[in-house]
Order: sequence, then structure tokens, then C-alpha cells
Amino acid sequence: MAVIPGDGIGKEVTPWAQQALEKAAGDAASFTYENFDLGAERYLRDGQILPEEDLAAIKQTDAILLGAVGDPRIKAGILERGLLLRLRFELDQYVNLRPSKLYKGVTSPLANPGEIDFVVVREGTEGLYCGSGGAVRRDTPEEVATEVSINTAYGAERVVRYAFDLAMKRRKHVTLVHKKNVLVNAGDMWQRIVDRVAQEYPEVTHDYCHIDAATIYLVSDPQRFDVILTDNLFGDILTDEAGAVVGGVGYSASGCINAKDEYPSMFEPIHGSAPDIAGKNIANPTAAILSAAMLLRHLGFDEQADRIDAAVEADIAELGSTQRSTDEVGRDILARL
Amino acid sequence: MAVIPGDGIGKEVTPWAQQALEKAAGDAASFTYENFDLGAERYLRDGQILPEEDLAAIKQTDAILLGAVGDPRIKAGILERGLLLRLRFELDQYVNLRPSKLYKGVTSPLANPGEIDFVVVREGTEGLYCGSGGAVRRDTPEEVATEVSINTAYGAERVVRYAFDLAMKRRKHVTLVHKKNVLVNAGDMWQRIVDRVAQEYPEVTHDYCHIDAATIYLVSDPQRFDVILTDNLFGDILTDEAGAVVGGVGYSASGCINAKDEYPSMFEPIHGSAPDIAGKNIANPTAAILSAAMLLRHLGFDEQADRIDAAVEADIAELGSTQRSTDEVGRDILARL
Ligand SMILES: CC(C)[C@H](C(=O)O)[C@@H](O)C(=O)O
Ligand SMILES: CC(C)[C@H](C(=O)O)[C@@H](O)C(=O)O
Repeated sequence: MAVIPGDGIGKEVTPWAQQALEKAAGDAASFTYENFDLGAERYLRDGQILPEEDLAAIKQTDAILLGAVGDPRIKAGILERGLLLRLRFELDQYVNLRPSKLYKGVTSPLANPGEIDFVVVREGTEGLYCGSGGAVRRDTPEEVATEVSINTAYGAERVVRYAFDLAMKRRKHVTLVHKKNVLVNAGDMWQRIVDRVAQEYPEVTHDYCHIDAATIYLVSDPQRFDVILTDNLFGDILTDEAGAVVGGVGYSASGCINAKDEYPSMFEPIHGSAPDIAGKNIANPTAAILSAAMLLRHLGFDEQADRIDAAVEADIAELGSTQRSTDEVGRDILARL
Repeated sequence: MAVIPGDGIGKEVTPWAQQALEKAAGDAASFTYENFDLGAERYLRDGQILPEEDLAAIKQTDAILLGAVGDPRIKAGILERGLLLRLRFELDQYVNLRPSKLYKGVTSPLANPGEIDFVVVREGTEGLYCGSGGAVRRDTPEEVATEVSINTAYGAERVVRYAFDLAMKRRKHVTLVHKKNVLVNAGDMWQRIVDRVAQEYPEVTHDYCHIDAATIYLVSDPQRFDVILTDNLFGDILTDEAGAVVGGVGYSASGCINAKDEYPSMFEPIHGSAPDIAGKNIANPTAAILSAAMLLRHLGFDEQADRIDAAVEADIAELGSTQRSTDEVGRDILARL
């Protein structure tokens, strides 16, 4: 197992996720851990972001536990593109799976949240994240900067299938979120693929929602969603908003999944490195711990994953509204395992 | 004055906006109105979306009152790109101005909304909206679809200046929203221009926020925003979420502004044609009426605009929580003018 704590609060929450993983796994699985010193400190020390030998070693592992990446001392994009996104792309982690659930005991910012329980299936290897684009006449009044979203039927279809398979295990409803009235090329392709694949899943209903409308529904009617299927950028945006709606990104885990298991999948909280609260021992490790549960489930240890989920649920139900430090939350959850 | 009711509820709310405009203007201004039959019905009748002669006539007007565009009978994008976006682009309406205010009497979906009062300055003529992109091998497993975001220093700088000017009249704070850790070319350009222009406004503070984080703050801490400055797509997304947070897009007006007054500016509610509720006389005309106020203000009739704003505020404070039809709300607001 590869462990990449990364930067900021990533370093504070990942040890708790690792301990929870270890304790939940018990005798059922014995993992060895390989820590990778990747992120801001490494970069500032020796200029390395993701050396080839580290990438090769990571490729040999069964799964990756990641904290968060990004540091204010380093220009935006360098670590994100060079480390986090590079891993997602190199390991072809095409399903970015992000469940949103309002736990009992968590206060949602919504007045009447009701029950919230949906999953976002975000495409993870294409779209505006592919790094295509450039600038001419940089830093002059004539500068032109472009960003190119590249979308393939191959890349879309595999996440579409994943979303419909997932829906079969849930409430059997898929909502495609895009902006097909403006992004007519990519949007049209996504819609056609969804319509075609849906025919193979007669039990699953599906509808469509523009990204702008989706941000409304997350606030006004989150119940309407079961499985949200969307592209890389829209998924990034929606899952942060969804995290806020279920009481803060401190409770939101995610998996960057290579569903064909050609490469290790990676599990991380959806929150970032949060430089503003780093080093204060106040970051909530729950999302990281829930990511460890997703990792276990991905490797087939369903029972062990359930155990973490149950410990987290019980912890939140009982103590969710109390002010606790990172370490306190970590210890409290571990004590229940 | 050009009036384009458009489609769906656009047709139901625009007459009320026009009447409010007329009544508020009183003797101070005497407008003549030219109605343009543009939108779904026209397109289905004669295949025309925005004929050259209509565009030429619209260019001769002082301002445009628009309802909403889009119809489920017509493939997504045709009317939006061909009519609404074409107008924004042809008339170089580079500032898409979208105030968000929680009116007294409106119930926000947030449990503790506090006072919400910010403005989004959305770039209106560039980015992913420029219509660049295409598809190869359409409808085959090898399809590739692209969308290109084109951003220019020229286009960004003028909205940046607009945002800082606006901030000077408000609480003097500008937040740039982008995704510069992924969209490094465009994001870097925006940030550089903001940093440079900001030096001319020593009284205005400014900060930066990723689009994903911004969707969180809109729900968890909307007070932090005064003027949000962002690109075309992010502005589209944020303003719909903001509309939801202030109690529904039924209260959110917008102006597509050519701040150099080379062409008429256009005023429209931020909501769409809402086919699901069209024809039922239940759409809220408030956003359209507030758009009429923005139009008046844009033409220099501040006092008349204030009158509409005051009528709307009073109406909402007194009757905002009652169930009323489109016509009832329209009549109630008009009665106060
Ligand atoms: C850090 C950043 C590149 C990343 C993303 O945009 O995917 C993050 O926001 C996330 O959602 O995992
Ligand atoms: C209808 C659509 C093209 C439009 C946009 O995306 O700009 C709308 O959502 C808006 O916000 O005015």
C-alpha cells in the first residue's frame, strides 16, 4: 500500500486514516505500507514532484492512500498537475467516486436538508483536466490563453457504464450533469452515450440537468439525486458544493478508481491541503478515515470497510456536534474499531 | 427598447417587466418598444433564429429586455447559442452583472443565511462560451469531442476594471474565482491582470478562491463576498447557486452589459425558460421586474430604478411567503409603483 500524506492538513489526517485501516483490517488482511515523500516539502528540497522511480514503485502497490496536495509557497498548479493529477492520469483512474451522505449528528447548513444520500461519479482522466492549452504574448495586452477540454467516447462510456452499474445497487436513478446547451460537442457526446448505454439497463431511470441547475438542486432539493454522472470539472465543482451541503468537506471521502484494476486506485478526502488551518490540529480526519474504508471496500474487504463506516457513523451521531481536535476525532473513531 | 420575451416562462414574466418599466419611468422617460418574435416558436415556424435584419434593428435600440430562451422541442444549444449567446457576443456585452441579495421576507434554504449581498461580475463574451471546438468520428467508439476556452487579456482586463470600479461603490472587496491550479493558462492570466489592476485601487482589497471552494463558501459563508469576479462558465454556475441561496432564482436579475455603450445592453432574469412550469401562471416575475430596474439604472434613470427596487422589496417583505400566481405578483408590484 502506498501512503502519500502530501501537504498541509493532508499530513495531519492521513496517519489517522492509516491507523483506522490497519485496525479495521485486523487479521483479515496484512498490509505493508510504503510512505512516499511527495508534495511541497520534497519539491522545495530537491525540485522533484513525482520522480519516475516513485511512480514505478507506486504502480506496484495494491492501492494508494493520499492526503491532500497544494501549498501556498508554490505556484498554483505545479503540485496539483505534477503530482495529484499526474497520478490520476498515469494510473488511468477514470472513475472519481464521491459519495455524499448527511450523517446523523452532523448539522447541514441547509434549514431542511432531509435525508441526503447520493454518489457523484466524476470522470477522472479527461475534459479540461487534460492539460491542453497555452498562451501567446504572455503578459502583454495582446495575451491569449486557452484551455482545451478533450473528451473521448472511450473515456466517457466507461464511466457511464460504471454509473449505471452503481445505480443498479442503489436507487436506480442516474442524472447526467453537463452544460450541453453551451458545450454542444462534448455535451452531445455524453448525452448520446448515456442514452445508448441506458438501453442496457431497463430498470434504471435517467435524466439530465445542466451544471448551473444542478448547483441549485443541491441546495433546494438534494433528494432528487441518486447517482450523478458528470465530467471532470463539473464533478470537481459539484462535489465540493455537495460536501458543504452535507455539513462540510470534512465528511467527504473519494476514490480515484481504475475500475479495470490495471493500476492501483487511490483514495483521498475531497478536501484540499487547507493551508489556512494546517498545523493547528483542527482538521477533521473523518473524510480521510472514510477514504480508508473506500479503499478496503475496493480491495474486497467489505466487512472491514463496513466496520470503519459504522465507527464513523457512531462517532458522528454521538460527538459530531462537539469541538474536537484532529487527534481527538482520530482517537475517538479508533476506539470504536 | 427591444423586447424579446423568448420561450416558456420568459413569455409570462416579460410583460410584467415591461409594465413595471413603463410605470416606473412615468414622465421621466418615454420609451417606445419594439417586440421581437425570436425563440422556439419562430424557429419552428420559419427556421429563423436571429435574422440579420432583426439583429440590425436590435443594434439600433437603447436597451433590450429579454425573458428566457430554450425549448425542449429543440435540440439543446441551438437557441441558446444562436440567439442568447449570439446577442451577448455580437453586442459585445462583456460584463454579465448578477447581484445576489437576500430580501427580507424571502426564506433562504440556508439555516442561518445572515445578510447576503454580493454581486457577481461574470465575463460575458469569452471562455468556454466562444463556440470553439468540434468532434471527430461522431457517434463511433472512437469519437473525440473538444471544447476550447479562449481567453484574452483584452477581454479579461475590461471586466477586471469594471469589478474594481464596482467594488469602490460597495464594500471594496473583490474575489477572483477561477480554477488556476488546473486551468493554469487562463487562471494565471486572470490572476496577473487582477494583481496589476488592483494596484490602481489601493482602497480595494482582493483575494482569490477556486471555483470548487467558492461553491462551498456560497453555502457556508456567503458574507465573505462583496464583488465576485469570474469567467463566463464559472459565473454561470456560481450565480445559479447564489440564486438558490437567496431563496430561488425567481429573485435574481442580470444585466449583459456593454459598458462602453457601443451597443445596447440586455437585461434578463437569470432563470431559464423553465419548460416544466411554463404555461401554469406560477413563474415568479420578480427577477424579470428587477431586470427592468437594472435596465433603467443602466440608462441613467436611477430614481426610477430605485422605485422598482423599493416596490419589489416592499412586496417581498409583505407577501414574499405567500403562494401567488405570476399575474398576482405582477399586479401587486405594479400597484406599489
Ligand atoms: C487539487 C485539485 C487539482 C483537485 C481537483 O480539482 O480535482 C481537487 O479540487 C479535488 O477535487 O480533488
Ligand atoms: C441559457 C444559457 C445559455 C445561459 C448561460 O449559460 O449563460 C443561462 O444559463 C444564463 O446563465 O444566462
